[in-house]
Amino acid sequence: MTERGVDTIEAFQARVAQEESDIRTWWDACQRQIQVHEAGVQAWEYLVPSTSTEIQSGSGQLLRGVPVGIKDIIDTTEMPTTWGTSGYLVSPGAIMDAAVVTLLKRQGAMLLGKTVSTEFAYFTPGKTRNPRDLSRTPGGSSSGSAAAVAAGMAPLALGTQTAGSIIRPASYCGVFGFKPTVNTISFSGIKAFAPSMDTLGWFARHIEDICTVFTALTRSDSIEALPDLTGIRVGMRNLPGDRPLDPDVTQALSLTARCLEQAGASVFALPLDPRYDELVKHHQVVLAYESAQTLASEFQQHGKDMGAKLVDLVEQGLATSYADYRSSLLLAEQCKQALSKVFADEVDVILAASAPGIAPQGLESTGDPVYCRAWTLLGVPCLNLPLNKGQMGLPIGVQLVADRWQDERLLSIARTLVALAR
Amino acid sequence: MTERGVDTIEAFQARVAQEESDIRTWWDACQRQIQVHEAGVQAWEYLVPSTSTEIQSGSGQLLRGVPVGIKDIIDTTEMPTTWGTSGYLVSPGAIMDAAVVTLLKRQGAMLLGKTVSTEFAYFTPGKTRNPRDLSRTPGGSSSGSAAAVAAGMAPLALGTQTAGSIIRPASYCGVFGFKPTVNTISFSGIKAFAPSMDTLGWFARHIEDICTVFTALTRSDSIEALPDLTGIRVGMRNLPGDRPLDPDVTQALSLTARCLEQAGASVFALPLDPRYDELVKHHQVVLAYESAQTLASEFQQHGKDMGAKLVDLVEQGLATSYADYRSSLLLAEQCKQALSKVFADEVDVILAASAPGIAPQGLESTGDPVYCRAWTLLGVPCLNLPLNKGQMGLPIGVQLVADRWQDERLLSIARTLVALAR
Repeated sequence: MTERGVDTIEAFQARVAQEESDIRTWWDACQRQIQVHEAGVQAWEYLVPSTSTEIQSGSGQLLRGVPVGIKDIIDTTEMPTTWGTSGYLVSPGAIMDAAVVTLLKRQGAMLLGKTVSTEFAYFTPGKTRNPRDLSRTPGGSSSGSAAAVAAGMAPLALGTQTAGSIIRPASYCGVFGFKPTVNTISFSGIKAFAPSMDTLGWFARHIEDICTVFTALTRSDSIEALPDLTGIRVGMRNLPGDRPLDPDVTQALSLTARCLEQAGASVFALPLDPRYDELVKHHQVVLAYESAQTLASEFQQHGKDMGAKLVDLVEQGLATSYADYRSSLLLAEQCKQALSKVFADEVDVILAASAPGIAPQGLESTGDPVYCRAWTLLGVPCLNLPLNKGQMGLPIGVQLVADRWQDERLLSIARTLVALAR
Repeated sequence: MTERGVDTIEAFQARVAQEESDIRTWWDACQRQIQVHEAGVQAWEYLVPSTSTEIQSGSGQLLRGVPVGIKDIIDTTEMPTTWGTSGYLVSPGAIMDAAVVTLLKRQGAMLLGKTVSTEFAYFTPGKTRNPRDLSRTPGGSSSGSAAAVAAGMAPLALGTQTAGSIIRPASYCGVFGFKPTVNTISFSGIKAFAPSMDTLGWFARHIEDICTVFTALTRSDSIEALPDLTGIRVGMRNLPGDRPLDPDVTQALSLTARCLEQAGASVFALPLDPRYDELVKHHQVVLAYESAQTLASEFQQHGKDMGAKLVDLVEQGLATSYADYRSSLLLAEQCKQALSKVFADEVDVILAASAPGIAPQGLESTGDPVYCRAWTLLGVPCLNLPLNKGQMGLPIGVQLVADRWQDERLLSIARTLVALAR
């Protein structure tokens, strides 16, 4: 087997079980891709030496022999962590692996290394380039994870999202990116930023692999495709909905809507009242207030080393009153409850823009998370579908969104759509 | 000034401002109380050497010169952390202070040391004894914090609650203990256990100090007493409500109800449907599932060293399906929403039992958190009022509960009640 994503995790497991393939084949294939692509893409903050790769034994492992990249804000005992600080804060090795790292190892996954994060998963970019066009940003904050998966250097990588840090880079790099319902996977051992919104998720090139990882980490039942999408109701609504859309985004949304209809779904514009458009603003209030509190120690110790945007955010947070923070949270709570009723009565999933357009030129910015902020504040599961191309043949994603704790339903619908779109 | 709690934080600040007292007086007084009481009470896992006490400079500090105890599951750079493991996991010093430690230092607080926690803040007890009767448990998991405050060794100490780890020890030790709305204070740098419920809070001997700390950490406006409680509606309801009550608890509830009425409040039995009584069971499901995931690394590495009760819980969590976990969370969510309506329409606060009775004899158990589980799952703010005595003159608390994010209202009502009850 070669990398560049021929196999799904399930297909690989089947081949290994039939002894057509050695369990370390995939890891070795990734190493070869890293040798080819890493000089240009620079997705990795740290790579595990090949002598120290191990697979934990266990029965019924769903990720046996699957190589995985770990975002560099996630604690690891055997690898350093830098939190995207380019050296002003470095841990040679944590006293304990983050919970999710142990969950992956327990399922037989093999760690490839730590992937580049922006500074504390905010806006100051790392070194990573977009594998689809090296002159462009891969997006952020999970820059290295999205790029490594897109370049075929890893079939799977962990990311985190507090604004648009999974969905946006997945859209820019042309891979699947999944942010589950907030609080689905423990953030223990992961650097927090705004705890009411911080969410662990992952990138893969196959929707089937996104599903397998969900089952492996949550111990849910396995997620299967439906025969078709007959009876599935899809509402189209961007958050915010009051901005002119880039033609690439409009086209990607229409093409996806057409695929959904061809698979039997009914697709229609979903009216949501204007409060939902204000959530972008409330997201910023919550982000600022919580990050100023959560990063208090980092700011105290290393404020002088921090990128200007992060300093601005913390200072904005310190100037935000508790009363304003609470108002924003309470409005979000009302919208969550009202949205649950919309999901119960009117739609199964919502189809929405992932990003304002293709990956922007240059590496000085990781792009704008504006189309992810409200969904992240609402805590809902979001999946980037990398099915379309925009200008210059560069990827342009759209996201499917479901109600909180409807992750399995969302993934099942997406799996069906992707199978039929092939 | 001597310790044993004569001063409130505000009174101390006023005296220091008038130069009647040196800023280090309170810290020195705590050291003398520690010399007297620590041999019996054993509240401390680690004590800061007197040579290394520092006060951070700053303007408008609300906790200037206030000595504070830090629960030993909270990361500190200058003190070791043991997580209540009696030595099988020890960090000589974290790379970064937990966020709340920096917030306290920024307000001028002086760290006294680390207070004893049960093992990872679950049920395996530490060495601490109840200062009101050394043959009894102080409760847990914030055993050392509650005991240190009760013994006058610290005017203030941090705790955490995931089941009943603040309210129960506060009741047993006879001090104020406050668990704010979940997610009010960042858990960054604190060992997580069940992230959807883990809440940081604190203990003090004065309700005024509980209020001052809330303002210092959240930057809310200062919380003042009302003229009286006229027009305040107090609903009485225990969760669960279907158990026979200990006579001490019945008496403490009645006496508190009478005080509230004398202050002008209307007090009445609050009907809540039987779903609320089932929340204790759902709390256990959420606790088990989340802790098995969150403590995956600790269990993998140190499962053989862990106390039997924690091993049982993790194993129960590993046997709990994602579907059952989700059902419990969704039921809790429905109850949260319905309870918000009750708070909006029918009551300002709820008066409820804190614990099944006075502190049990012996140190092998930290007592039963049953009367705290449902409230913690609901994420609501809870305050233990240490106004009553039970058998043998030992403390028996009751708790006041408000809706999520009504912390300031709750504390304001409590402050009024306590002032009038004096």
